[in-house]
Amino acid sequence: MTRSPIIARSLSSLHRARTELCKRNATLALVPTMGALHDGHVSLVRLAKRRAQKVAVSIFVNPAQFAAHEDLGSYPRTWKEDLARLKAEGVDLIWNPDVKTMYPDGFATRVVPEGPALAGLEDKFRPHFFGGVATVVAKLFTQVRPDMALFGEKDFQQLKVVTRMARDLDLGVKVVGGAIIRERDGLAMSSRNVYLSPDQRSTAPVLFRTLKATAKRMRDGDNFKAALSDGADLIRQAGFALDYLEARHAETLSPISSLNDGPVRLLVAAKIGTTRLIDNIRA
Amino acid sequence: MTRSPIIARSLSSLHRARTELCKRNATLALVPTMGALHDGHVSLVRLAKRRAQKVAVSIFVNPAQFAAHEDLGSYPRTWKEDLARLKAEGVDLIWNPDVKTMYPDGFATRVVPEGPALAGLEDKFRPHFFGGVATVVAKLFTQVRPDMALFGEKDFQQLKVVTRMARDLDLGVKVVGGAIIRERDGLAMSSRNVYLSPDQRSTAPVLFRTLKATAKRMRDGDNFKAALSDGADLIRQAGFALDYLEARHAETLSPISSLNDGPVRLLVAAKIGTTRLIDNIRA
Repeated sequence: MTRSPIIARSLSSLHRARTELCKRNATLALVPTMGALHDGHVSLVRLAKRRAQKVAVSIFVNPAQFAAHEDLGSYPRTWKEDLARLKAEGVDLIWNPDVKTMYPDGFATRVVPEGPALAGLEDKFRPHFFGGVATVVAKLFTQVRPDMALFGEKDFQQLKVVTRMARDLDLGVKVVGGAIIRERDGLAMSSRNVYLSPDQRSTAPVLFRTLKATAKRMRDGDNFKAALSDGADLIRQAGFALDYLEARHAETLSPISSLNDGPVRLLVAAKIGTTRLIDNIRA
Repeated sequence: MTRSPIIARSLSSLHRARTELCKRNATLALVPTMGALHDGHVSLVRLAKRRAQKVAVSIFVNPAQFAAHEDLGSYPRTWKEDLARLKAEGVDLIWNPDVKTMYPDGFATRVVPEGPALAGLEDKFRPHFFGGVATVVAKLFTQVRPDMALFGEKDFQQLKVVTRMARDLDLGVKVVGGAIIRERDGLAMSSRNVYLSPDQRSTAPVLFRTLKATAKRMRDGDNFKAALSDGADLIRQAGFALDYLEARHAETLSPISSLNDGPVRLLVAAKIGTTRLIDNIRA
């Protein structure tokens, strides 16, 4: 039998729980989530358990990272299922603040990331996103004070932004990326996949297939521009509205046009119907 | 004989020193400064020693809070005198990073304060100031991890901005204000007073005298507008270029027009020659 996680909803109960959990200098890993947990989150929890003695998961749907037209209201909330999964994984602590606890009256401070947050990828299509992410993650780090925090590579740019932010603000938290977990047909797991109609769901793996095919052409020595342009055509022909398909330096996220110029990451974002999907792979 | 303070110039030596100082859960107070220490700083150090078991002073002239036309290059640097004063006060730790330690290559994160940072006082005349202050103070807090930090009330708006920022980012640092320390003729102590020519120096106390006279008129029931307008005239007649003379709510910094509407703070900023002075008092 696994013990139930401690569930903290106020800062005072969080701090009490943290002190109790880490009293013999136990190391603590945090997996920040917005709930609606899937196997990708679970893989981060398992990675956390291998890396640290205690594991905390935060569940907070952060209004600050949604634009007015985005899906804050309809974002899936599955508390009961989430709790069952986290209990089964032996998570020690769930930090589940409400909006008033995270942003009390008079809240007036933003953490504004630049550098990787201005790479012209997600930031171009979701201009408020990384400001909201950086602010809430900075707060999650100072609230929970973990030794490390785990983020999925699916949000690849976010992983870079959070890594930079934690270093820049001397938060003392090591940011660790976890590999993308995929459905059997290759679709990257995402809480937003539940929005897809059956037709859209069967089309969705085109993104990963195209990433793989494009990466292969690059490794085979094809011109980056031609490979990317053909990949973009494939994605559009499948019925997506493409936001971007780009090759970037895997560390700096700056544009790159040859495998010789550094580790290359291929990144894609596209809408099918009203659902926006992102994915990426190493090229 | 007092022990010499530990002087840390790298993050690793800072963290070592902090662990050593606070090993038996000793409480730690931080006095952030830009050096060029005067009796105002010393009064903060003494307040810190009454409130906490260990006292750290940071000395860092923060480029991020100076605009291009401001006095970063000529800001007084008096390391030897500063060290002697801090030693005499029994300070335990001096945190003295260089610019590369504080802002390493690739640094790309800003802490942007709103609320009290947008009150239309200093922010109106130094638009970059509070962003630079909030970012460096957030970093000083996460680097030194004090239980409390002390700031002079001379920079009254800064005190409010830093208090809000520390609370908003859950930094776990109690921000404490220290009373303004004045020269015998009333001039508020400031590292920038060394810029004043003898003539300017003899004119400078007009600011405090006007604050006192204006506050008295307010307490005597005079109309705020008339009192402030007469005060502004006095300051200008003395030869200052006035940036503002304002009555604000002492907590929110919002404009206020009666002593009945809350605790009132009178704030002034004015230039004499090229030197900009600020001051404030309770009305």
